[in-house]
Amino acid sequence: MKLDHIAVAVRDLEEAITHLRDALGMETVHTEEVPGQKARIGFIPLGNTNLELVQPTDPASGLAKFIEQRGEGLHHICLEVRDIQGSLKHCEEKGLALIDREPRVGAHNKRVAFLHPRSTKGILVELCQP
Amino acid sequence: MKLDHIAVAVRDLEEAITHLRDALGMETVHTEEVPGQKARIGFIPLGNTNLELVQPTDPASGLAKFIEQRGEGLHHICLEVRDIQGSLKHCEEKGLALIDREPRVGAHNKRVAFLHPRSTKGILVELCQP
Repeated sequence: MKLDHIAVAVRDLEEAITHLRDALGMETVHTEEVPGQKARIGFIPLGNTNLELVQPTDPASGLAKFIEQRGEGLHHICLEVRDIQGSLKHCEEKGLALIDREPRVGAHNKRVAFLHPRSTKGILVELCQP
Repeated sequence: MKLDHIAVAVRDLEEAITHLRDALGMETVHTEEVPGQKARIGFIPLGNTNLELVQPTDPASGLAKFIEQRGEGLHHICLEVRDIQGSLKHCEEKGLALIDREPRVGAHNKRVAFLHPRSTKGILVELCQP
């Protein structure tokens, strides 16, 4: 298991990219629209992992509500797994709360699935299979 | 620059370690008291980086207030830098809000300093020098 990325909810993707790139000397490599998550994302490499900036494209989405209630900030972490179906089965057997029972398409066309933060110490966890 | 760890605020360190280790199959390597941060921490390796679980030891600390207001969950990210004094100077010149103007002693006896989330898109950023 490894950390594929850590995601930050932002109101304005371009502004956030410019700000963080300038402030922290980071480089951007990739932006894309992810309809399955109702979001636009930007990936900034961090050396051993990535920072994902996520801007909601639908004001009714969970992400938009997150920003409304808590402001911009850390949103979720994404763990890369080898077998996402097997991992979801394992998580279910361990009593974790699944948001997605079946993988869906996420950024970079990877198969992704989310675990609910209520059974992971308040951490919204995304699993992804490369 | 690389991600040294991502930190999660928890109410009960031992319970959180047991729960996450069991649920996600993670292994714990290290726990310690960090008086400078009024916290007890547990480090769980994540492959390319680490998950740090942080339990406040002082109910008046910022960490304790964070949990009171927002519940357990993602708290900060820590970026490893080569020259923490130089990085703080750079951040100040870029107009970022510093919590620590001088490094202090953090986990693993590393020199650490925090940036205020108000100028980093809501992300509480810790810098550390190995």
